[in-house]
Amino acid sequence: MTRLLVVGGSDAGIAAALRAREVDPDGDVTVLVADAYPNHSICGLPFFLSGETPDWRDLAHRTRADIEEHGVRLLLDHRAERIDPDRRQVEVSAPGGRTVTLGYDQLVVGTGAVPVRPPLPGIDLPGVHVLHTMDDSFAVAALLARRPRSAVIIGAGYIGTEMADALTHRGVDVTLVEQLPAVLPTVDPELGAEVAAELTRHGVEVAAATTVERIEAEAGRLRVEGSGGFTAAADLVLVAVGVRPDTALARTAGAELGVRGAVRVDRAMRTSVDGVYAAGDCAETWHRLLEQPAYLPLGTTAHKQGRAAGENAAGGARTFAGSLGTQVVKVFDLAAARTGLRDHEARAAGFDPLTTGTTVDDHKAYYPGATRLRIRVTGDRRSGRLLGAQILGAASAQVAKRIDVYAAALAAGLSVDDVTDLDLSYTPPFSAPWDPVQAAATDWTRSLGERGVLPATVPA
Amino acid sequence: MTRLLVVGGSDAGIAAALRAREVDPDGDVTVLVADAYPNHSICGLPFFLSGETPDWRDLAHRTRADIEEHGVRLLLDHRAERIDPDRRQVEVSAPGGRTVTLGYDQLVVGTGAVPVRPPLPGIDLPGVHVLHTMDDSFAVAALLARRPRSAVIIGAGYIGTEMADALTHRGVDVTLVEQLPAVLPTVDPELGAEVAAELTRHGVEVAAATTVERIEAEAGRLRVEGSGGFTAAADLVLVAVGVRPDTALARTAGAELGVRGAVRVDRAMRTSVDGVYAAGDCAETWHRLLEQPAYLPLGTTAHKQGRAAGENAAGGARTFAGSLGTQVVKVFDLAAARTGLRDHEARAAGFDPLTTGTTVDDHKAYYPGATRLRIRVTGDRRSGRLLGAQILGAASAQVAKRIDVYAAALAAGLSVDDVTDLDLSYTPPFSAPWDPVQAAATDWTRSLGERGVLPATVPA
Repeated sequence: MTRLLVVGGSDAGIAAALRAREVDPDGDVTVLVADAYPNHSICGLPFFLSGETPDWRDLAHRTRADIEEHGVRLLLDHRAERIDPDRRQVEVSAPGGRTVTLGYDQLVVGTGAVPVRPPLPGIDLPGVHVLHTMDDSFAVAALLARRPRSAVIIGAGYIGTEMADALTHRGVDVTLVEQLPAVLPTVDPELGAEVAAELTRHGVEVAAATTVERIEAEAGRLRVEGSGGFTAAADLVLVAVGVRPDTALARTAGAELGVRGAVRVDRAMRTSVDGVYAAGDCAETWHRLLEQPAYLPLGTTAHKQGRAAGENAAGGARTFAGSLGTQVVKVFDLAAARTGLRDHEARAAGFDPLTTGTTVDDHKAYYPGATRLRIRVTGDRRSGRLLGAQILGAASAQVAKRIDVYAAALAAGLSVDDVTDLDLSYTPPFSAPWDPVQAAATDWTRSLGERGVLPATVPA
Repeated sequence: MTRLLVVGGSDAGIAAALRAREVDPDGDVTVLVADAYPNHSICGLPFFLSGETPDWRDLAHRTRADIEEHGVRLLLDHRAERIDPDRRQVEVSAPGGRTVTLGYDQLVVGTGAVPVRPPLPGIDLPGVHVLHTMDDSFAVAALLARRPRSAVIIGAGYIGTEMADALTHRGVDVTLVEQLPAVLPTVDPELGAEVAAELTRHGVEVAAATTVERIEAEAGRLRVEGSGGFTAAADLVLVAVGVRPDTALARTAGAELGVRGAVRVDRAMRTSVDGVYAAGDCAETWHRLLEQPAYLPLGTTAHKQGRAAGENAAGGARTFAGSLGTQVVKVFDLAAARTGLRDHEARAAGFDPLTTGTTVDDHKAYYPGATRLRIRVTGDRRSGRLLGAQILGAASAQVAKRIDVYAAALAAGLSVDDVTDLDLSYTPPFSAPWDPVQAAATDWTRSLGERGVLPATVPA
């Protein structure tokens, strides 16, 4: 009977454990959970803090009982400290100050990521928070219970923009500071500008192209100061400038690190250490289009990597198919999504990209409620291959699943022109005879033709 | 300079004409439009009649001016009567009783379909209507202006269910009669039952498994009688039992007919007659999965076929990629969608299908507004290949674009298991880390494993 030990009770770890039990129903599977909250949705924290999800317990993808019912042993508040790969043992800090040593046949490391805390003066002051764990979330919730007037959020990525929405929902005045010129820097600035406008429309003060330089305590509150004379008072400062892989444990085993310091893994999710797998935000991600490792810490990817790691650790043979960096975020009434490569990413990867923009109704304008989608398509001029897409539109306009049509096309290696050949569904309340994703693809092909590189008529 | 003549001013014809002008900006392109309404959206008629689209002019995909601006000559109220393929001439009934003869170098026939009028006693009575053209629509609109109390709709397909919604919207009591045991027979009865429940919930009387036998005039109204003692009084009877290809014109040229009597075409949309193309509802449709001709009269397909025909007629070389029968309909607050093959269709085509059902939230339940999706996945037991999918859910639950993810997967020839490998977007308001389309695919694979045909672990 194989003893599988999993470190990490979030998406990757729990997915690995459950999949291992599914593949080998007799396997002995133990998960070490560093806190008391196995399988809670980190992506759900903004909605708990906004009040839209009143009970934090609802954030659990699966309850403890549900996981245990599948024959997985959960050890809560157990922190893995060191791996001895030769003896196949892990040294664990257990509750009550105890240290225990657990043996394994196969080990899956799913230690996740840690939020980046920039070395700013004042970063450790009370009232300055990151948001990555349930405990972080409880700390912010406790502060919100004291009815703060205003908050400064540093970083306008996914978490930053979602939290600007969430705190506004709670009646807090929000200032959102972003170092780069546009908010949501994971999409093109043209789309980021619309997200900024949506934030502003809902009362968020947006300070782009602003670098925070220090945080100071002042009269029981906080003062945030930055470049260009930026200054804002706040009762709460949220730091959301990204994450880095938590590789401390994997390094004790001597595991090699790769892209952006994440644990190097092959496509079976094996690390360089025999018997040790890694999955989720601590590990590299195979990029399906680049066909090389990248670092793309996303919940969707963590689940898939964890599933592959668990399957392989239990004796299966599953290859992680790879990520395309597909993402979507809801900010107030807007959705912004992307998949694949943006223009500069494609160029850096050796493609000869062309990116075109299209503005098009989400459904036939004669049916009530049509809204405008902004779509950006990136393709390779030489081959005509689809490389990526971005969509911005109303939260009600099927933005998330429209980006997924591109994601499926990317996974299949389709050309931009092939997208126009897809047989997509149509009824006037939901689309047009050529869906917006196809209208944007047609614009790309037409634009390429005009630039004289590929003919407008691409033989199918 | 090529003279291209297009017969038919609906989706296929206009798409052909515009594409021909795009490919050959010097080409001479004329479209014969049998009525005065070029490029009006037939799919939009229910929304005009419901009152949601108050002005019928808004139903035009493109205005006459817009089409003409692209250099396309439109001849309205010109009906093509006969093709002389040897002389490359078409005899045309023009306004004022004139007959004119037009020459062509290339001809595209886009004559569409005609609604089936079953040979029922009373089918020609005043107050009994079909709904396929603008003139049909105006006739029904005139009748609705007289504030009818009740209507009987014969046929619970797409048009029938949409019109049940539309007439209810107008305050008319609707009885919907369907010969088959379930409404919306294009999806599995399990889903049809939910559509029936939605109709009933909104006050529509649903009579399934009922064959209409006669329509009689009675005291200034109509009486519809059918099997099982069915009887209903009505001020309006709408017959929506399907369409058949309008091949009268193509036959005058000696064009061969194919599946279900539609004009036989190759994948370049060429008929058997030299210089004559056909596209849209009058023609066969290449089925992308079956890899043989089918008859699938849909607006989306008509546009794509028309585009290919126009491109080829203008000297290009485009292959029509084919249809998967992807469709979606909105009925009150529900959306029902399908793509590819259903179980019995797959079996008839020589596959060894397995179809599984999954009920799953459209997004994380902890975020407000989650609703249940019912998804049915059909795959081939032998190869694991995805063959088709059906989704039923709330109109707000991205049903249309979720079916399109399956449609893209089908076009790429993916296996059901490959669907779980797709990198789809996730944020709690819109999805789950495994999107519902993937949860349903996982259920299929698991079910197959349990049945012992393929292993639960399908190597990627």
